[in-house]
Amino acid sequence: MTLLSAIAGDPESEALLSDQAQLDAMLAFERALAEASAEAGWISVAAAGAIGAAIDGFAPDWAGLEAGMAQDGVVVPALVKQLRSRVAEPHRQALHKGATSQDVIDTALMLQLARVFDLYETRLSTAIDRLGALRAECGPIELMAHTRMQVALPTTWGAKLASWAEPLQRHLRDLIAMRRSLLVIQLGGPVGDRGSFEGHGDAIAAAMAKRLDLGLATPWQAQRDPIVALGNLLALIAGSLGKVGMDVTLLAQNEVGAVRLAGGGGSSAMAHKSNPVNAEVLVALARHCAGLSGTLNQALVHENERSGAAWTLEWLTLPPLLVSAGASLRLGIRLLDQIEITAAR
Amino acid sequence: MTLLSAIAGDPESEALLSDQAQLDAMLAFERALAEASAEAGWISVAAAGAIGAAIDGFAPDWAGLEAGMAQDGVVVPALVKQLRSRVAEPHRQALHKGATSQDVIDTALMLQLARVFDLYETRLSTAIDRLGALRAECGPIELMAHTRMQVALPTTWGAKLASWAEPLQRHLRDLIAMRRSLLVIQLGGPVGDRGSFEGHGDAIAAAMAKRLDLGLATPWQAQRDPIVALGNLLALIAGSLGKVGMDVTLLAQNEVGAVRLAGGGGSSAMAHKSNPVNAEVLVALARHCAGLSGTLNQALVHENERSGAAWTLEWLTLPPLLVSAGASLRLGIRLLDQIEITAAR
Amino acid sequence: MTLLSAIAGDPESEALLSDQAQLDAMLAFERALAEASAEAGWISVAAAGAIGAAIDGFAPDWAGLEAGMAQDGVVVPALVKQLRSRVAEPHRQALHKGATSQDVIDTALMLQLARVFDLYETRLSTAIDRLGALRAECGPIELMAHTRMQVALPTTWGAKLASWAEPLQRHLRDLIAMRRSLLVIQLGGPVGDRGSFEGHGDAIAAAMAKRLDLGLATPWQAQRDPIVALGNLLALIAGSLGKVGMDVTLLAQNEVGAVRLAGGGGSSAMAHKSNPVNAEVLVALARHCAGLSGTLNQALVHENERSGAAWTLEWLTLPPLLVSAGASLRLGIRLLDQIEITAAR
Amino acid sequence: MTLLSAIAGDPESEALLSDQAQLDAMLAFERALAEASAEAGWISVAAAGAIGAAIDGFAPDWAGLEAGMAQDGVVVPALVKQLRSRVAEPHRQALHKGATSQDVIDTALMLQLARVFDLYETRLSTAIDRLGALRAECGPIELMAHTRMQVALPTTWGAKLASWAEPLQRHLRDLIAMRRSLLVIQLGGPVGDRGSFEGHGDAIAAAMAKRLDLGLATPWQAQRDPIVALGNLLALIAGSLGKVGMDVTLLAQNEVGAVRLAGGGGSSAMAHKSNPVNAEVLVALARHCAGLSGTLNQALVHENERSGAAWTLEWLTLPPLLVSAGASLRLGIRLLDQIEITAAR
Repeated sequence: MTLLSAIAGDPESEALLSDQAQLDAMLAFERALAEASAEAGWISVAAAGAIGAAIDGFAPDWAGLEAGMAQDGVVVPALVKQLRSRVAEPHRQALHKGATSQDVIDTALMLQLARVFDLYETRLSTAIDRLGALRAECGPIELMAHTRMQVALPTTWGAKLASWAEPLQRHLRDLIAMRRSLLVIQLGGPVGDRGSFEGHGDAIAAAMAKRLDLGLATPWQAQRDPIVALGNLLALIAGSLGKVGMDVTLLAQNEVGAVRLAGGGGSSAMAHKSNPVNAEVLVALARHCAGLSGTLNQALVHENERSGAAWTLEWLTLPPLLVSAGASLRLGIRLLDQIEITAAR
Repeated sequence: MTLLSAIAGDPESEALLSDQAQLDAMLAFERALAEASAEAGWISVAAAGAIGAAIDGFAPDWAGLEAGMAQDGVVVPALVKQLRSRVAEPHRQALHKGATSQDVIDTALMLQLARVFDLYETRLSTAIDRLGALRAECGPIELMAHTRMQVALPTTWGAKLASWAEPLQRHLRDLIAMRRSLLVIQLGGPVGDRGSFEGHGDAIAAAMAKRLDLGLATPWQAQRDPIVALGNLLALIAGSLGKVGMDVTLLAQNEVGAVRLAGGGGSSAMAHKSNPVNAEVLVALARHCAGLSGTLNQALVHENERSGAAWTLEWLTLPPLLVSAGASLRLGIRLLDQIEITAAR
Repeated sequence: MTLLSAIAGDPESEALLSDQAQLDAMLAFERALAEASAEAGWISVAAAGAIGAAIDGFAPDWAGLEAGMAQDGVVVPALVKQLRSRVAEPHRQALHKGATSQDVIDTALMLQLARVFDLYETRLSTAIDRLGALRAECGPIELMAHTRMQVALPTTWGAKLASWAEPLQRHLRDLIAMRRSLLVIQLGGPVGDRGSFEGHGDAIAAAMAKRLDLGLATPWQAQRDPIVALGNLLALIAGSLGKVGMDVTLLAQNEVGAVRLAGGGGSSAMAHKSNPVNAEVLVALARHCAGLSGTLNQALVHENERSGAAWTLEWLTLPPLLVSAGASLRLGIRLLDQIEITAAR
Repeated sequence: MTLLSAIAGDPESEALLSDQAQLDAMLAFERALAEASAEAGWISVAAAGAIGAAIDGFAPDWAGLEAGMAQDGVVVPALVKQLRSRVAEPHRQALHKGATSQDVIDTALMLQLARVFDLYETRLSTAIDRLGALRAECGPIELMAHTRMQVALPTTWGAKLASWAEPLQRHLRDLIAMRRSLLVIQLGGPVGDRGSFEGHGDAIAAAMAKRLDLGLATPWQAQRDPIVALGNLLALIAGSLGKVGMDVTLLAQNEVGAVRLAGGGGSSAMAHKSNPVNAEVLVALARHCAGLSGTLNQALVHENERSGAAWTLEWLTLPPLLVSAGASLRLGIRLLDQIEITAAR
């Protein structure tokens, strides 16, 4: 659905969440696991070297991965099988040793999210800066306030712009703080207690975290609240930008005329129209993200040591949440560039 | 995200909802509009011929369509512009005459949905047939009933299979009935009152409906309840199959052993596992569809004669709902093929 | 929370869904069960008489029912115990014979819903009539149409009022149709196969349905789609009225002035305000119902022969959905009474 | 609906959110406003005294408040009118001077939430302590881990109990942190810029915050993200406890038998049943809270300087979210008291 993506998608986020990006992150996991296992003396240095060589230049059989995904509900068994066939014996069993699929998937997600956080932090900062510049320029201009959809009393654009910027400042602060609480390694083995690493688990996890520039954590495979908390923050970001969009659609009404939009959308039937397209899409994205975050919260009810149902539900909801929040940020910045504040009437 | 699609997607639905399928449907709309307008004497037969010729073999500049989508929030203005440049003068203005973007988009959706309904009706019938066959084969086998997650009293597989089949029968009946209420033409012009057709609107609409094999209806551009009702039905379908999936995961527990699954999913770490992957994904899809349908209902609050925000929200939620419900049907059938009912223990 | 209820609640619906109303319906179930069981020859006529006498004038120990609810997760065991103590021996065991808690609760809900349907059908008809009267009076008045939050082209109030009325007409039709599909008896016994009635189940169910003026159905205890379908319809009703509310808030803006509202809400700080309170609350109720219906759909994933979790989720979501949709109807009618259509400016 | 409340409600939270509790908090606002205004020299000390005297022993005409709520969509105008009639002249206009309804409602909510936070922090600590005690007692006991609803490998109860406790520890930390970010005064006047306080606004706000033991903040009337963030945290709390409930229902299955529950729920038809009622209700509450939090996020799209629709949507969703999360904590603690861990089989 490329067309819809042109308005409501976000190519940069989509790239960071693509199959290729996930594959790269999974390979980084397996490489770091091998190196850390060698460092801990649990596999040989030669094995780690053989694994690294297998990963270098690895191009998967994508059809095989898809078939594995359909069969196993998770791509890792098929991926490990493909990779393992490239590892020179006697080192094959050293690949993925001690780990389980979820270690790979969850850690790979963290690596992908670290890049997404870079992007969203930059965009939030950009939006906040634009609002600051608008405020410096237009802050004293009078604006008629509206409460409960009725004319209230005059206020200033400075107050309006502050009400748009302050939530974004909070979201930026919370996103930065979430790096520490969320972007941590997952390493637990089959049932999440590192028992499969025969005493080397903690050392391997620490060395992997360092290599992958992730935080260290005890296994959290059935504790999904940090992931859901990210979804909640994404809904807040999209919601705060949706409020900006809603305000702009109201202020840009012909009868109100408090803002004009440079480059509004055209109509196939009414040449005079200048539609506040980006503002409207911000509202739609806010509502979509609100819904997706509600559904993602359903995944907290995670059965026992690993729930295929709840985990799949995360996969169905978190990526569109990330892309939609990314699209909100992209469109929010664009909308702030379009706004032309007019003197109060 | 091809990998996720391998388990939770549905290639057939996705094809019916692709950009190409939408383009084909939009072209069918413009062709039917021209033919019906000529039939009504509102444009010349020559104009209709020129428009038909322009549509024949039309291959869009997709990048231009995407740019138009991003600019206008709807692809139709860019599409009409591309098409119009292929129409020989003096017939250019006869293309899309009287219509508005929403007429094209909504009617195209109905044409696409007609194919989706074909697919889902077939699948529902297949699932119902499989359940009937299972019941014929295993109905009398005793099964321990479970209520409130505790052993209750013995019942039979016949009762269980009936409780899985009956909701699907209702959904099939409702889906068939929905063809009449939903799959109708949208033709209203800019503000939805057919005024732009200068008295020819009703005749053109009737002729178009006949050509496109859609029902006839007065303009419904701001009345979105039939579309939302479809979303609700999709959630019911996915939910009823999610119940089947949940039952199977419970009955297939090693400690319960009332069903075995042929070809269960493998684990990267535990060779003995046979995971009920399809059953789990059915549960996840049910929850995802429940959430999406809730969000789609938010789009009922449609501002005035056309809401860009509410309409975009439909585009963000209905296609994934359709695909997810389609995936539920696909996996539901596969799961019923996998089930091996074992004698009660 | 009486205060909130004063604006967003609905006393009539709340009364039909009160504990007392549920108790009355449960007692009607037990009485009908006894009479039908006697008719079927499964219990003695004397027993049915003793049970009827016990039910006559029964006033429960509410604290005991609450304690039972907290203990058992369903009120029926405590209720049956209280009732049974009033039945003269040797007839005590004839009370509730063969039935299970869910038979009582689900059938009682159907009896309550029958009254709710009466109320909502009347209200829908009233709203449709008001819209018809408004259209008769103001249909030809010109109204500026707005698409995508921008001035479009002139249309008429007739078109606007039709777009408000047609969805309500569909909802009324669907609500009436739902009486047949939803308002049916539940009688299955512990595991839903009527086995506990020792061959008399079908006859008893038929006689009970007749006595209770409900449709006849095979047991459907784990098939919750008809209940969820009701929730979906309620969300459609509230959503269609939310669209009316949204339109009114937009048209009543001081800068637009296409409608005035008689008796708008006052402000504690701005004496000149006339707030479109009922219209705003309609929007809020639409969004609340959309969310609740999404959550109710989660209850379709109903484990095995009876899911305490999914069933409780119905109890948490369906009553507020009913009350909120009832409030929407109540406020929608009031709003239609308040609207004063002004000539186009 | 007292009966449902007996299982899924929470009397303590309900009391803190009652109309009476809100009234008390609104009166505390008006008193603090008068005292702070006198301190700032904006009203006379005599006026503040007269207002305090009017508030002392004030018992509202509740029916009048309800009528005002229905009329104005917010209770404050009616409340101020009732209160003002008790203030001796010439001090009547000093009551509520400069403030707007939203200042009263939002600040009153913060005062109520401060008490709710006390309660939930205590309960979270209690639940964490119980889990710690269970771990001390049973940590080394072997437990069969289950992944994807299948037997995996043995782990220990220590690992299971840690996976239950760690999310609650995070939620407690976040709840404590939220006191600072959320529990702040709202004082903005009609359009939220303190202009109505004629230069005294900042001083009055600071003095009120001190008196009310709330944080100080610039007006935030159209910035609802902190309130929505609370809703998100409540869904996390209920979700993490829902996971505990789900695990318990699975582990307490007769076929699994890893836990027994003291005092399980009874059945009206099957005497042998011991239903895991509290565990099931925890699952239902988790799903309900997930849905409510998704809907609450819809309220972020808050029109202009005050949205009646979005604000009402908060009132419809936040109180049931608070009560449901409170009920989750209440039941979670009870469930932990009921659990009897049995040796692995």
